[in-house]
Amino acid sequence: MKDSSRRAFLGAGAFAGAAWISCQAPEAESPGADSGPSALGAPVRRYGERSPYETSARGVRDSQTPEAASSRTPLDKTYGIITPSALHFERHHAGVPEIDPATHSLTIHGLVDRPLVFSLDDLRRLPSVSRVHFVECSGNSGGEWSPAGAPTVQLSHGLASCSEWTGVPLRILLEEAGIKPEAKWILAEGADACLMQRSATLEKALEDGLVAYGQNGEALRPEQGYPIRLILPGWEGNTNVKWLRRIKLTEGPQYVKDETSKYTELMEDGTAWIFTFEMDAKSVITSPSGGHSIDGAGFHEISGLAWSGRGKITSVEVSTDGGETWTEATLQNPVYSRAFTRFRFPWRWNGKECVLQSRCQDETGYMQPSREALIAERGRVSAYHCNRIKTWKVGIDGSVSNVEA
Amino acid sequence: MKDSSRRAFLGAGAFAGAAWISCQAPEAESPGADSGPSALGAPVRRYGERSPYETSARGVRDSQTPEAASSRTPLDKTYGIITPSALHFERHHAGVPEIDPATHSLTIHGLVDRPLVFSLDDLRRLPSVSRVHFVECSGNSGGEWSPAGAPTVQLSHGLASCSEWTGVPLRILLEEAGIKPEAKWILAEGADACLMQRSATLEKALEDGLVAYGQNGEALRPEQGYPIRLILPGWEGNTNVKWLRRIKLTEGPQYVKDETSKYTELMEDGTAWIFTFEMDAKSVITSPSGGHSIDGAGFHEISGLAWSGRGKITSVEVSTDGGETWTEATLQNPVYSRAFTRFRFPWRWNGKECVLQSRCQDETGYMQPSREALIAERGRVSAYHCNRIKTWKVGIDGSVSNVEA
Repeated sequence: MKDSSRRAFLGAGAFAGAAWISCQAPEAESPGADSGPSALGAPVRRYGERSPYETSARGVRDSQTPEAASSRTPLDKTYGIITPSALHFERHHAGVPEIDPATHSLTIHGLVDRPLVFSLDDLRRLPSVSRVHFVECSGNSGGEWSPAGAPTVQLSHGLASCSEWTGVPLRILLEEAGIKPEAKWILAEGADACLMQRSATLEKALEDGLVAYGQNGEALRPEQGYPIRLILPGWEGNTNVKWLRRIKLTEGPQYVKDETSKYTELMEDGTAWIFTFEMDAKSVITSPSGGHSIDGAGFHEISGLAWSGRGKITSVEVSTDGGETWTEATLQNPVYSRAFTRFRFPWRWNGKECVLQSRCQDETGYMQPSREALIAERGRVSAYHCNRIKTWKVGIDGSVSNVEA
Repeated sequence: MKDSSRRAFLGAGAFAGAAWISCQAPEAESPGADSGPSALGAPVRRYGERSPYETSARGVRDSQTPEAASSRTPLDKTYGIITPSALHFERHHAGVPEIDPATHSLTIHGLVDRPLVFSLDDLRRLPSVSRVHFVECSGNSGGEWSPAGAPTVQLSHGLASCSEWTGVPLRILLEEAGIKPEAKWILAEGADACLMQRSATLEKALEDGLVAYGQNGEALRPEQGYPIRLILPGWEGNTNVKWLRRIKLTEGPQYVKDETSKYTELMEDGTAWIFTFEMDAKSVITSPSGGHSIDGAGFHEISGLAWSGRGKITSVEVSTDGGETWTEATLQNPVYSRAFTRFRFPWRWNGKECVLQSRCQDETGYMQPSREALIAERGRVSAYHCNRIKTWKVGIDGSVSNVEA
């Protein structure tokens, strides 16, 4: 509705103080009937696809090694808390293997009473659970350590996605193998070309570890570990080992290359943090966000996502004045533990320049920090675990851009 | 694991009385390392697809008019409570129109103070909600009125699916248009070639009606009404008008062709029930189900789906002895109102012939009936709203088939 002469503010409706732009309807009994489709549409089909008018895609940067690269979810183009599987972010170290589930198996060995091998058919017979959890690369928002920050939410936060995962609780598999008393850690290994490995604590594996074969109602997608992946809810993305083929129980961590050469946090005094597994509470406004253009003053819902590796999000606050004042946003219910939580905030833009921010708190009482507070605690050398408050600026022309808070 | 000599029962693990088949692991440090992929896998990509090994599809029957037909969700191939959008059932009366969202609009008129037209951009600015709801064709399980019943769960119950829907509460749009006191009903019209219409009560529209533009995190799929559809949670599928373009407020129902020639229930005395909007509580075991083959005695999880158009499912009971005894199944949490509810039941098959059934109860206290009880209430003439208990027989060879209870 670019014709402002047709615009008119409407009276307050179902929600306090809100108003927005709309226009009068024609008086025709069946408006546009003559412009409606005059021929039959497409027939039923066996497998559906999205509309040709929908073109949102994962962000892929040119790379000499696209098999060892990442792609980012267009978070500002998603709704609710489920990430479409086709748009779930990727981070691969040796590309996506094509695995025949009939020949794939999961071995559990090491400090167990009896090593076991499970086929996919075996796993599907066992007690299963479905839980909604986010997976986030620990390098997500790495660019946000710098003052500039990324210009769009896909670039700044797109290495995080959320799915309904279905699979077998890892506890069941480990207890059937028989856990020896000296076992305190596990080593998980993937079936990709680099045999990607990560160490994790046995305590976490037993608490809520999941060997997942289902994602959003269907089998895992190849990029998310088909036919099975490990889910360690709330922990660094790459501990959720994809194409899972082996779990070894051990006395201690194995210090494999993927947890020493990468995924450690260098401090300014030269020491490094290692095994910083839990992803810290983070939130970001996805709409409006960098690159968007607001079409005129009036009502616009502010919406975004919050998540924490330590449990449930308990509150999200939104500021439209650069952090001077904060107001509680509405959380989409139910709120899941270690999952995306959608927040929504009714906003009437007055057409003036303004600065939008969100900050969240999780059930441990932890509050998402400003960049200054984060640097005070962790310095500026690390590229991982950046969960600073993100700031968007709305210009008088309605353009939305990234600014340093 | 076809080699029974390698089979061994394992001791009870995390769940009481359960045991299943598995086998010993080789002693190799990294089993199968030499058989692992030796080359890099596929690179990151902008939009994902499922594994070529995954071939589950909607059931489509040959038809002279595939534009006015239905396709069924393979419920026994789905996990959790979310139906993959590509496998959401279809029922079209004039095919799937290809609509450019930039030119599509929703008109609200009739008994209102001021008719309004909303573009997609208008709708996306407004307060939104995301809710998980099933949509079920009122003709789903129609074949179950007959003694035989359908041989697979896709054929017997596949005209039902469940998604996370995102959109604008219809109440907000109607209240902004200004509801005249004499308005008691609405007429919703789609933009397909037949301008599909249905009447609904204003009370329902205001209670939880939703103008949805999002499905499972992305835009609606074309077959589910792209770019917008009406969601009337728990009501007959075709009242959830797809490709929604018009809502007219009226004093009474309009008795349009789609609610007189179809979607009425003929009783044996020749009278017909009309506007039987709410779908009755129903459950079905999806695994194991007709056409499956159980690979040997031992532990097998029984899993299925339950839903009610009247609110939340409060309990699902499973019988493995043809209804002589019933045991409470575990419900996947959280349980949503008017949504698929996944139930799971640990079962150890003794290798003998047995008969599996499930029955559910919703928060109104309504209990899913046997076929006999349903016929006693509604006769055998109608093809709609069949929610009888479904029965699967397991043969000594492990084959699962449909039988009359």
